[in-house]
Amino acid sequence: MKSLEVCLTPALLPLFDLEGKIAVIIDIFRATTSICYGIENGAEAIIPVAEVHECIAYRDKGFDHLLAAERNGEVVEGFDFGNSPFSYTSEKVGGKTIVLTTTNGTHALHQSVKAKRIVIGSFLNLNTLCSWLAEQPESVILVCAGWKNNFNLEDTLYAGAVTHLLTGKGSYRPDDAAIAALDLYTLAKDDLNGYLKKTSHSERLKQLGIEADIAFCLNVDTATTIPVLEGERLVRLR
Amino acid sequence: MKSLEVCLTPALLPLFDLEGKIAVIIDIFRATTSICYGIENGAEAIIPVAEVHECIAYRDKGFDHLLAAERNGEVVEGFDFGNSPFSYTSEKVGGKTIVLTTTNGTHALHQSVKAKRIVIGSFLNLNTLCSWLAEQPESVILVCAGWKNNFNLEDTLYAGAVTHLLTGKGSYRPDDAAIAALDLYTLAKDDLNGYLKKTSHSERLKQLGIEADIAFCLNVDTATTIPVLEGERLVRLR
Repeated sequence: MKSLEVCLTPALLPLFDLEGKIAVIIDIFRATTSICYGIENGAEAIIPVAEVHECIAYRDKGFDHLLAAERNGEVVEGFDFGNSPFSYTSEKVGGKTIVLTTTNGTHALHQSVKAKRIVIGSFLNLNTLCSWLAEQPESVILVCAGWKNNFNLEDTLYAGAVTHLLTGKGSYRPDDAAIAALDLYTLAKDDLNGYLKKTSHSERLKQLGIEADIAFCLNVDTATTIPVLEGERLVRLR
Repeated sequence: MKSLEVCLTPALLPLFDLEGKIAVIIDIFRATTSICYGIENGAEAIIPVAEVHECIAYRDKGFDHLLAAERNGEVVEGFDFGNSPFSYTSEKVGGKTIVLTTTNGTHALHQSVKAKRIVIGSFLNLNTLCSWLAEQPESVILVCAGWKNNFNLEDTLYAGAVTHLLTGKGSYRPDDAAIAALDLYTLAKDDLNGYLKKTSHSERLKQLGIEADIAFCLNVDTATTIPVLEGERLVRLR
């Protein structure tokens, strides 16, 4: 039987054995949603980095990449766009490579390098991802990016959504965190946005004026591609 | 407004600022339950240690303490008793000091030393503890001992029970983990034992033949004392 583990924050990753497993990186607000939307819309590749200066280094090296970064809800000066998924339309990203600055998502990804394969999850590609995972022989670990290494609800809810679909599609043994995530998702699923309104993170995002982004990030099954890590680049798996 | 934070495993403690706060240590199966029951039954003090050899060191130094340790469900040879709360009756522990070997609980406790005050929680003293916490001016952090630094459900459910009572008794600002714990507790509270049966930990404990211990650990409000840390000793606060 395949195992289905949920790592609630990257700080807990050293406790897990990632070898031979598929790791799904989850940073719902907003990095992994933007990545799924960008790849869906024809971006050639997305390169996630942690810091603005790493992002700039790509341009300094003469690469013709789009650069994405924001601080306090504003696009960083000289950058092409910020972290809103609305920036990742076909018109803007089709055929392009984007270097995306994202602290929590990049951290989760880099901490997961021992996994056999690293893919990107969001509500946008939920069913596509789960159908593909169920076809693979490997066990699955869902890596919640969280907030500054601590637990957050939105990534956990998504882990619960995946647990819900996978345990319905095949034979998986969920761990305690997967059971908890599933139960929270079951409570929240009819109104994800309403459920998340009671969180502190929601308040923080509201102050940034990105409520439309949040609603977008909670759209389910609007995408049919799965971004997969190849070297340092996230590209289309299918 | 006081904050109410839930630290889901000791591995996440470095992310929290414990200064000036009351830390509640939670290791429901079975360390903090046994500690609450022992102090309730008149033990003078309980000294939690992580390793069997530390426990033995107390006897080697000539202290007349009871020693408690088990490995694989058996009392370690030469020890007075194991980790079952049923060992902590008035007849056995009244007036005595017990050195208790407990890996997860001791780890959580030692990682919490920066807190202003450290107290011990279990379902046995749930209401007594929450009434006392609500009277204190300090913010509260609930430290789940977890299982080998990872998340577990039973400690999280208890954190949810405390969140339920405290947010009913006063003005607390819960963090995301407290909100999640509360929702899980609300799902589980009418049948804690039934809810926990689906966890992996429950299966492990069943194999140890300690199902009676588990049922005991889920008894609510049978004790009216709060163990508090003074130096290395847990003693009666009230």
